[in-house]
Amino acid sequence: MSHTSAGYSIIIRLRYPDAPKFLGMITSVIGTEGGSIGAVDVVSSRQGLITRDFTVNASNVEHGERIAQTLKSLEDVTVVNISDRVFLMHLGGKLEIHPRVPIKTRDDLSMAYTPGVARVCTAIANEPDDSFRLTIRRNTIAVVSDGSAVLGLGNIGPRAAMPVMEGKAILFKEFANVDAFPICLQTQDVEEIIQIVKALEPTFGGINLEDISAPRCVEIEERLSKEMEIPVFHDDQHGTAIVVYAALFNALKLIGKSPNAIRVVVNGAGAAGAAVTRLLMEMGIQHIIVCDRQGAISTKREELNVLKKWLAEHTNQQAVEGDLKSVLVGADVFIGVSSPNLLQRENIKTMAKDPIIFALANPDPEITPAEAAPHVKVMATGRSDYPNQINNVLCFPGLFRGLLDVRAREINLPMKIAAAQAIAEIIPSDELHADYIIPSVFDPRCADAVALAVSQVAIETGAARKGHAAI
Amino acid sequence: MSHTSAGYSIIIRLRYPDAPKFLGMITSVIGTEGGSIGAVDVVSSRQGLITRDFTVNASNVEHGERIAQTLKSLEDVTVVNISDRVFLMHLGGKLEIHPRVPIKTRDDLSMAYTPGVARVCTAIANEPDDSFRLTIRRNTIAVVSDGSAVLGLGNIGPRAAMPVMEGKAILFKEFANVDAFPICLQTQDVEEIIQIVKALEPTFGGINLEDISAPRCVEIEERLSKEMEIPVFHDDQHGTAIVVYAALFNALKLIGKSPNAIRVVVNGAGAAGAAVTRLLMEMGIQHIIVCDRQGAISTKREELNVLKKWLAEHTNQQAVEGDLKSVLVGADVFIGVSSPNLLQRENIKTMAKDPIIFALANPDPEITPAEAAPHVKVMATGRSDYPNQINNVLCFPGLFRGLLDVRAREINLPMKIAAAQAIAEIIPSDELHADYIIPSVFDPRCADAVALAVSQVAIETGAARKGHAAI
Repeated sequence: MSHTSAGYSIIIRLRYPDAPKFLGMITSVIGTEGGSIGAVDVVSSRQGLITRDFTVNASNVEHGERIAQTLKSLEDVTVVNISDRVFLMHLGGKLEIHPRVPIKTRDDLSMAYTPGVARVCTAIANEPDDSFRLTIRRNTIAVVSDGSAVLGLGNIGPRAAMPVMEGKAILFKEFANVDAFPICLQTQDVEEIIQIVKALEPTFGGINLEDISAPRCVEIEERLSKEMEIPVFHDDQHGTAIVVYAALFNALKLIGKSPNAIRVVVNGAGAAGAAVTRLLMEMGIQHIIVCDRQGAISTKREELNVLKKWLAEHTNQQAVEGDLKSVLVGADVFIGVSSPNLLQRENIKTMAKDPIIFALANPDPEITPAEAAPHVKVMATGRSDYPNQINNVLCFPGLFRGLLDVRAREINLPMKIAAAQAIAEIIPSDELHADYIIPSVFDPRCADAVALAVSQVAIETGAARKGHAAI
Repeated sequence: MSHTSAGYSIIIRLRYPDAPKFLGMITSVIGTEGGSIGAVDVVSSRQGLITRDFTVNASNVEHGERIAQTLKSLEDVTVVNISDRVFLMHLGGKLEIHPRVPIKTRDDLSMAYTPGVARVCTAIANEPDDSFRLTIRRNTIAVVSDGSAVLGLGNIGPRAAMPVMEGKAILFKEFANVDAFPICLQTQDVEEIIQIVKALEPTFGGINLEDISAPRCVEIEERLSKEMEIPVFHDDQHGTAIVVYAALFNALKLIGKSPNAIRVVVNGAGAAGAAVTRLLMEMGIQHIIVCDRQGAISTKREELNVLKKWLAEHTNQQAVEGDLKSVLVGADVFIGVSSPNLLQRENIKTMAKDPIIFALANPDPEITPAEAAPHVKVMATGRSDYPNQINNVLCFPGLFRGLLDVRAREINLPMKIAAAQAIAEIIPSDELHADYIIPSVFDPRCADAVALAVSQVAIETGAARKGHAAI
């Protein structure tokens, strides 16, 4: 049985005779079926019958159903109902809007609303940048999606994308006190998305684009970055790139290889793969080959889209041809942002000494740590149940915290590198370990370090509207 | 001196010798200058000098400055600084986004975000209306403005409009627990606004349009109402109309006049005046004359805009001509949604017996209660410092509460009338009084009553997606 997760957690309410043998029997059945019991709570006990809620983590939806089915077959045990904890948690949505100032009296009303508010409006009309001081723009960003590439689910549309955007907004708040509001748009037209997001500029201090399909996301982000006066960040591209940079920087430091001497193979030439590649070049890595499903991308390939054309021109200088497995021979680093189970143990054996594998396909990596284990030196995945989880939450909350703190106009390349370095430096050199090249997603130092680094670079590069003083 | 207000409240920090005479002298000077002292707080006391903060309500900005100037002239008294309480209250904006579910542990993360969230997304993809159950749409509306007609300030633009929209959002939350997010758009193009708001539909359960100039606001609201599957409400039009309906209904009941027997003059033929007129016709009022700056609107007038053309065709059946003062002769009711100080006492004398005056121009009414007093029977204004305040906050929070509770698709006329009746009925017949025809804005019964009435009518008229059951 694979790992159970609270993400597949159910509450099974059972009623059975109040005799000692039943509880043991039930927990034993759940255990035998591979379920993990989180809690057992008594609901009621009367007339010789006891009703209990069993909170059980399963490993997927079918697994949960199978456990319930087996319990139903037990003699004298009634399944009263089964509720899904994840759906219970989502009822009514995951965010609320809270006033920062109360309106309980007429005095409150006259200060936060008319007539007092008119003076604040007039002040902003006279000095529009004061909107960064006197309105929610000070601390609020939009998390914008069109629902065209949501998680691994694909183009499920804006309504179905919302729970992800709400979750992202919670992460912004919990990790860096950034107020983020989710906006899911009823259009997948590139020009229309650009026009709408531009029109939202007076409301927000920054824009986080999310789960927009490639290569549209690249054009949308580039255009908005150019045409707006607030930072625009496509997390799926640059968040991933920044965290990969941090992890690889530490991995190379640990094993003593120099960026300019290594050979890297990136598998996956979508928006994330391209962004990772671009940022790794800034680390001084000179030999990168990017593969798509057809194999190595090079200037010899024809009919490449904009993204791949750029990659062909800037990577793979020897224009090596061949499939993933053939170009992997002798490589120092494999970075997969592609699909599950593409590599076998034999492929890892063909790599250079002390290979580094970042198998980031989610939820199932390009190769599992167990399969790669005997030959790999450092391994990272996107999963929380293996060591070295590459998770964008290490970057985006602190990044926007730093941007908002100095009212940045944009996000530039030096900020991205500074953010990556800040994440890498959380782990002191003497603590680096094959299983600890990247901080835990819950490391409280991370957001602060990223925010400080980003805001400093914003000031140095002239992208900041203000210095580090208070509001 | 006119009324002081917390809306013009300053904190004056003074340092002076710690001798008994000073405090008395200072408070006396503030009083003589017409300031109203709210609080006196000691900041520090050392070396024979005491520093105190005097919180003073003034009646306008210049008044506050004059008070401070006079204090500066006092011997041995130093004005350390003056801060504006309204601006202090607005620092950093007035709203925050709060998670309804915490993400403190990996289990939380796996339920509110990946992998658990994917199942919720899939459920909505299969059944899009579940977005009203499983996302913020359940309880969240947008407060949308283009900043083209903000308060009495005019076209100050979207950035400067934001403090008003934030204030409105607070009112929604405080009065009816509706989550409202303010959106100020960087465009004043009618088609573009329509397109953008339509694209926001997957994010919200309703749209409150605010401070958009006439007649554009009418077209925007009508088009959006037709083209969207969630309720769209332009508060400046219909909120005003609903509260005026409620107040007039009670005023007529109090003095025993019947709607179908009275003559009403509405002054102001903008969006609010037209909406008020339309709704009053639903009360059974047959004789209405609407005036603009040129006088009575009738079919004899030429070059009327769409709004006024409709009014000409549906009111003033005798096609009476003349200016406001001449058509007011013999009228039972005057409703002003226009400009300050248009009427004098003599004009009121020409009206029918027991005249009703709603002088709603803000902040200065068409005629003050003091001026109208000897001849008027019932008087209402938009101000909180006179009796009978006509304030939209009596309507909009409860209205949207009711709409969200039943996941309404639209707002229809029966709902508006039901909302008005619910507000009117808050005051029992035996409590009706010339100074109490409309509940206080802080009457806790109001939002609940409006919500219940609106949701019931939504169900009856088939505008509701669901009944009254829990989520």
